[in-house]
Amino acid sequence: MATQPKTAITPTRIEDYAEWYQQVVKASDMADRSPVRGCMVIKPWGYALWENIVRELDDLFKSTGVKNAYFPLFIPISFLEREAEHVEGFAKECAVVTHHRLEKNAAGGLTPAGELAEPLVVRPTSETIIGDSFAKWVSSYRDLPLLINQWVNVVRWEMRTRIFLRTSEFLWQEGHTVHATPEDALARTHQMLDIYAHFVQDYLGMPVIKGRKTATERFPGAVDTLCIEAMMQDRKALQAGTSHFLGQNFAKASGIKFQTPEEKEEFAWTTSWGTSTRMIGGLIMTHGDDDGVIMPPRVSPAHLVLLPIFKNEDERANVMTYTESLAAELRNTHYHHARLRVEIDERDIGGARGWEWIKKGIPLRVEIGPRDIAENAVFVARRDMDHRKKTSIKRDVFVKTIGNLLDEIQGNLLKRAGDYTHSHTRVIDDSDAFYDFFTPENPEKPEIHGGFAMSHWCGEAACEAKIKEDLTVTIRCIPLENTTEKGRCICCGKPSEARVVFAKAY
Amino acid sequence: MATQPKTAITPTRIEDYAEWYQQVVKASDMADRSPVRGCMVIKPWGYALWENIVRELDDLFKSTGVKNAYFPLFIPISFLEREAEHVEGFAKECAVVTHHRLEKNAAGGLTPAGELAEPLVVRPTSETIIGDSFAKWVSSYRDLPLLINQWVNVVRWEMRTRIFLRTSEFLWQEGHTVHATPEDALARTHQMLDIYAHFVQDYLGMPVIKGRKTATERFPGAVDTLCIEAMMQDRKALQAGTSHFLGQNFAKASGIKFQTPEEKEEFAWTTSWGTSTRMIGGLIMTHGDDDGVIMPPRVSPAHLVLLPIFKNEDERANVMTYTESLAAELRNTHYHHARLRVEIDERDIGGARGWEWIKKGIPLRVEIGPRDIAENAVFVARRDMDHRKKTSIKRDVFVKTIGNLLDEIQGNLLKRAGDYTHSHTRVIDDSDAFYDFFTPENPEKPEIHGGFAMSHWCGEAACEAKIKEDLTVTIRCIPLENTTEKGRCICCGKPSEARVVFAKAY
Ligand SMILES: [Zn+2]
Ligand SMILES: [Zn+2]
Repeated sequence: MATQPKTAITPTRIEDYAEWYQQVVKASDMADRSPVRGCMVIKPWGYALWENIVRELDDLFKSTGVKNAYFPLFIPISFLEREAEHVEGFAKECAVVTHHRLEKNAAGGLTPAGELAEPLVVRPTSETIIGDSFAKWVSSYRDLPLLINQWVNVVRWEMRTRIFLRTSEFLWQEGHTVHATPEDALARTHQMLDIYAHFVQDYLGMPVIKGRKTATERFPGAVDTLCIEAMMQDRKALQAGTSHFLGQNFAKASGIKFQTPEEKEEFAWTTSWGTSTRMIGGLIMTHGDDDGVIMPPRVSPAHLVLLPIFKNEDERANVMTYTESLAAELRNTHYHHARLRVEIDERDIGGARGWEWIKKGIPLRVEIGPRDIAENAVFVARRDMDHRKKTSIKRDVFVKTIGNLLDEIQGNLLKRAGDYTHSHTRVIDDSDAFYDFFTPENPEKPEIHGGFAMSHWCGEAACEAKIKEDLTVTIRCIPLENTTEKGRCICCGKPSEARVVFAKAY
Repeated sequence: MATQPKTAITPTRIEDYAEWYQQVVKASDMADRSPVRGCMVIKPWGYALWENIVRELDDLFKSTGVKNAYFPLFIPISFLEREAEHVEGFAKECAVVTHHRLEKNAAGGLTPAGELAEPLVVRPTSETIIGDSFAKWVSSYRDLPLLINQWVNVVRWEMRTRIFLRTSEFLWQEGHTVHATPEDALARTHQMLDIYAHFVQDYLGMPVIKGRKTATERFPGAVDTLCIEAMMQDRKALQAGTSHFLGQNFAKASGIKFQTPEEKEEFAWTTSWGTSTRMIGGLIMTHGDDDGVIMPPRVSPAHLVLLPIFKNEDERANVMTYTESLAAELRNTHYHHARLRVEIDERDIGGARGWEWIKKGIPLRVEIGPRDIAENAVFVARRDMDHRKKTSIKRDVFVKTIGNLLDEIQGNLLKRAGDYTHSHTRVIDDSDAFYDFFTPENPEKPEIHGGFAMSHWCGEAACEAKIKEDLTVTIRCIPLENTTEKGRCICCGKPSEARVVFAKAY
């Protein structure tokens, strides 16, 4: 009789999903809490993932003509006062710099001194300060489109934080573009959403629904907010990227005007779009299992680890020579327009070694012992399969086919996540069924329940509010690839033109 | 009779070097002042240069086993209180966060609210907060060496700022390593200095002197500070990178201890090393001429610009087809392990177009007109030569030899800078000659004067202080590649063992 397999992570997802997440992050060695409330330390394994995400997304941006720039960390408080709506939505909880010096006090400690005439806010987003520059940079239709992005840290003071998902400081990119016509700006809004969807699906392996936010959920000041929404394994939705069409609102607030070919002065049309380290939280929650993180190969900090196995110094010399030569060969091999990223771990710590790499989610673990060398083979385990399943592969075959192996894992992760999303997405037209779907059987300690409900909505904010109040369920988006379909609002029964995605959300 | 050639930048270097610098930066479109006092906006042309610098340096770091991570922007004030010496040297002028919320006030404006129990400092450097993490990460000799770097923004409140050279916020990298022995830590200190010297010379084209700081100029808390110093065209020195051996000082302040193989607990040995956007200021001041910036090809935001020339729509179609096809061919060509970065500028703005690219410092300007196309040739101008000198080159030859052309420019820039540094470096043993060397003829409006004086120094801080007081000249470094040579201190006449580099400095 097979014994119940032990999991590397306690509790498991089913036992306590939120705590499972914290333990997975810890076990993966990706990040740490910091002594600064709500801020995180991103450790090398987590930061290398972020670097890969940045490199790939950045290439995609640049291929559409976007250029990077850098704007100041600080924003004068008067800039925020100008945009009341913006502040309502965003800038209330932020870090405020009021002094520019430290002085020794009588107790030998340090006291803030040199009070600023005008306090500065640490950017929660850079809309206003970028707008100030754009107003100077743009004067003629010839200057348009202006396509700018920056990769920076931002701060939004958070009381309840969770690493990668909600932290006071996080890393992100914010793109800001200026156009001469609403059509151009709208096309750009969709183009960037498409890039996000492509990246999140084909690199992070997370299936997403592209959609439009309701007026309630829209970015403050936006005419239209597009988003991609993904289902996590607790069946909640995570927004993995947003792209905003700002009409002329932002241009008017910032004074971004241009002269048309007909020499008329007009306010420009702008967009903004962003993604953040939150994507890493989404990746973990989409693919992770009860043994830890599973990294999609295209962005994984490393593609494989070589685990030499030896019993004595004699064996060691032989095995290490073989391992180093295989590593060198692999590092000269390309996978998905980059060189293979190969780790070697020769620590003598027994079974803990393999488990560490499982918990880190490295796609391939490759054992190399004297017996394998004798057969000129390696012993390969895939992170997307049972940890006990290992296959002997001839060295030359392994080197030649490793790209296929990695592609298989990449595809498998996306397929698994797609199947999961699909199996927890329900077309619901009955109000009772809707309330049942989103109500856990155990209200004390809610089990994993719900998912995406594709239901009709009349378009009224009141219905949205009632459902949110009753169930903490919100309209994640109105899918872009929606077929028009008449129906009746799941809340009030009034006529509806199309289904929307209801879900609990991060 | 030839007329005096007009320069693109006014004033010229000789007329007013400081103002020339500001005008060159402006004309290059690399960066802007910002509405936030002392902060800069790095525009796409400047930021692309920084991205190339980051990519190349980062590869060099990683090739030695360094891994990147990310530590919080904020540092609790109590962390700084622990390290008195550190604060003395560094953290006095910094941005202090005292509140975490904005509230609407009666006047409709915003007021800081939510006072923090403990103020936070925006990192002027991350030594202390990294030390806090390292103390948790290191417990055994098996955890060593620990080799960590981060690329981040830092803030040091500055009253008198100059773009790239001294700004309140700037971008930098700070490397921090932990070792089990002083020998390992010292070797790492030198290894990183060598990487800096290699990068600054072979990528930025700036000749440097590697040396050691005197006790007076040393980093607070360091046992030894190594640096590279380069001569600008006003003959002042610019420190382009530093690498510190911190002994056990930093480990003791942060509690970084490890268990030795003999199971003894010991404080670790640490290093830190950094470079910043200041390098960009150095690059501009080293290579720039009276027509603007000159970009070294290896890090230039773009390698060449194609400038199509046409008189009517018919010509335009033909010329643009040729231009696009050449661009595509060039973009598939590699230069120094990267694809060629090609700009196309088809704006119809007359001679201003060529001048814009000259001021931006792009290495090659390539004109393509109907006559060139008829001959299947292009008309090439090099930024390191007189702007009127243009050469017709057959297209296939151009594509085949562009790498050599760029290498020639790269080499030429380094050679020119080397010749300049050499011709303004003097061996001086006479005190009067020393004072003459560093005294301008026109004290009202000092002309470019001085340079590097290789003179003897007895080792006393008093002599260093006197020379600084008299001439604002400091010891930039004690060269590492010094030959021992007996002599007498340029200040007091006491015996000296070796020459040091005296200069005015940025
Ligand atoms: Zn309704
Ligand atoms: Zn002396």
